[in-house]
Amino acid sequence: MSDPVYILGIDMLKFGKYPDRSFAQLGGEAALLALDDAGLTSRDVQAMYCGSVFGSYDMTGQAIMREIGQTGIPVTNVSNACATGASAFREAWIAIKSGLYDVVLAVGVEKMPRGMLGAGHQTGIPVEGLFGSASMPAVFAESGMEHAGKYGTTFEQFAKVSVKNHHHSTMNPKAVYQKETPLEEVMGSEMIAYPNTKLMCSVNVDGAAAAVLVSEKRARELGMGRAIRVLASALTSDPWNPRNPVMPDVNSVTRLAADQAYAQAGIDPSDVSLVELHDCFATAELLHYENLRLCGEGEAGRMIDTGETALGGRVPVNVSGGLLSKGHPLGATGIANMYEVALHLRGEAGARQVEDAKIGLTHVVGLGTASAVHLFEHA
Amino acid sequence: MSDPVYILGIDMLKFGKYPDRSFAQLGGEAALLALDDAGLTSRDVQAMYCGSVFGSYDMTGQAIMREIGQTGIPVTNVSNACATGASAFREAWIAIKSGLYDVVLAVGVEKMPRGMLGAGHQTGIPVEGLFGSASMPAVFAESGMEHAGKYGTTFEQFAKVSVKNHHHSTMNPKAVYQKETPLEEVMGSEMIAYPNTKLMCSVNVDGAAAAVLVSEKRARELGMGRAIRVLASALTSDPWNPRNPVMPDVNSVTRLAADQAYAQAGIDPSDVSLVELHDCFATAELLHYENLRLCGEGEAGRMIDTGETALGGRVPVNVSGGLLSKGHPLGATGIANMYEVALHLRGEAGARQVEDAKIGLTHVVGLGTASAVHLFEHA
Repeated sequence: MSDPVYILGIDMLKFGKYPDRSFAQLGGEAALLALDDAGLTSRDVQAMYCGSVFGSYDMTGQAIMREIGQTGIPVTNVSNACATGASAFREAWIAIKSGLYDVVLAVGVEKMPRGMLGAGHQTGIPVEGLFGSASMPAVFAESGMEHAGKYGTTFEQFAKVSVKNHHHSTMNPKAVYQKETPLEEVMGSEMIAYPNTKLMCSVNVDGAAAAVLVSEKRARELGMGRAIRVLASALTSDPWNPRNPVMPDVNSVTRLAADQAYAQAGIDPSDVSLVELHDCFATAELLHYENLRLCGEGEAGRMIDTGETALGGRVPVNVSGGLLSKGHPLGATGIANMYEVALHLRGEAGARQVEDAKIGLTHVVGLGTASAVHLFEHA
Repeated sequence: MSDPVYILGIDMLKFGKYPDRSFAQLGGEAALLALDDAGLTSRDVQAMYCGSVFGSYDMTGQAIMREIGQTGIPVTNVSNACATGASAFREAWIAIKSGLYDVVLAVGVEKMPRGMLGAGHQTGIPVEGLFGSASMPAVFAESGMEHAGKYGTTFEQFAKVSVKNHHHSTMNPKAVYQKETPLEEVMGSEMIAYPNTKLMCSVNVDGAAAAVLVSEKRARELGMGRAIRVLASALTSDPWNPRNPVMPDVNSVTRLAADQAYAQAGIDPSDVSLVELHDCFATAELLHYENLRLCGEGEAGRMIDTGETALGGRVPVNVSGGLLSKGHPLGATGIANMYEVALHLRGEAGARQVEDAKIGLTHVVGLGTASAVHLFEHA
């Protein structure tokens, strides 16, 4: 294997509504923050990847370079549904692996269509036709009910995911919502698709996040002090599924990515200190405990009951507040997850710091289908 | 430098109108043709890149894998305006360079919005807001007039580009138009933006093209007989331009890419046997003779007059018919250019075969801005 790749700088904007700012302005600001974090400038960047869903066709990456200082470097726009930001990051990782570049910038940025933004917590988003024909609430309601049917997982257990993540977000100044949301409030909010109520759906927001990736050689030159080593980068699409090739299967695609990532890193799921996973709906988080091998089959309900995945537990999940309370700007989400993990590995997460964080896992899954799992440790 | 990368299979669909077929069906068919050409199947593919402008946000790559047999591999959707197909190809090239994969599929596919397709040769395409604020006919009219002002290039010289490329297309069964178009017809057609008439504008069509890239190791195992070696792959964005940072400068971005490609390959422009360049407008082709260093400054008009760039000339340009007569389905164009070059390097181009073709160059440039230049030779 070639030398490892490092994150030298990473940052994100507070997620929220930015009606008066463009994709390029949001992405450009995140890029400058990440470059500052790395102690570099746009002149040092040798290639750039931009991840965006709604800005993907419109040269958003190049527009970001005009914001921060264009230099003629290769810029490539990437789009992979909710795995878009992580895919842009992964292309940057591959570009450094290739030996062609030593410093590559990855930016994820999204401005959600206005109709979606008004909705706050997403509900009946008009996604029919976007990423396939199934609606997202239906997909995640159905897979939650399948879990309930097999293992007796309860409405209350699913709801507790949202309570936990909203609690975590009270300690994250970059989350769109930062308030406690008690169980009765979560369970009593508008029912979207059983068992997910409105407060168990992720929040549509605008946002941007960026990371500066460097080669081992460049990391050594610049100083490893705050560098984060990429232990694994796995991206998967729908595996062969003769039973039902049309309905998106968010479980198998995640399992495949997780297993590949653990194998690449040569670690066991029990080695993971914290996880930022794709809680686009509360049901999804519980499913992903099992998909990411954080617990055995059918044990996800117990895991949320015992507090193992809350801050202070064995393996805290979505300490940032997650998509449920930090917010979910599609193209920015993947890199924002990595920012959260990097904070903890560096010991810079303040009130929500996971103690003794050694290895962090990030996960996203987009309908259509793409799942990315990354593993990181402090260099 | 790491080992070279090879094209083992490459193909394209006849460009035209496919109202009843989806992005996935068009891209899937091109992918299967390319795999057939390589003697491989979808099971052999380890990663896949899909380039599309209008399908970029909608998981087109994954949908193509469902058409040809999904296997769970990493799939990434790429978009870079008119450089989209070449960018998808380049990501596949980088992925093999990284050592992570030995067989990577690159597909470029486009279905043009219906309003555009009706137009045939593109005219007042509503591109305001797409890839920046300038309209494409205006950009290429203005840059043509700048050349005319400096070097005395004439309306007739620009028009001769279109006559040549339409003539070439009469020998290409995959071109949308395959008929001679005399000079008086080109010059007499509707004026779009002086000096480009309607027949001097590229043709909006649907289309798909695909390439199978393999590592040196895999190429040796499978047989080098019909393999095409990638000598250089360069992608550039807007270089710094203090004079006018807003108006897209299609010249400097192409020059930068060309110079990088020649340096990578260690060859001289005079070593190139044939060129498929981005003749989105007739004026563009003449500008690119100089941008690609096929002639000196101000000599492009002379070059078209003397027939140097026609089939049988010193360096035939757009023997496929080019965007002006083969057609221009944005995301597919870059890989279709490479298909044409590969045919000639393999000696399989039939009536339009460029004699003794040794090295081929492909070029695209998209507003916004991205330019890709690739160099190829028979293995």
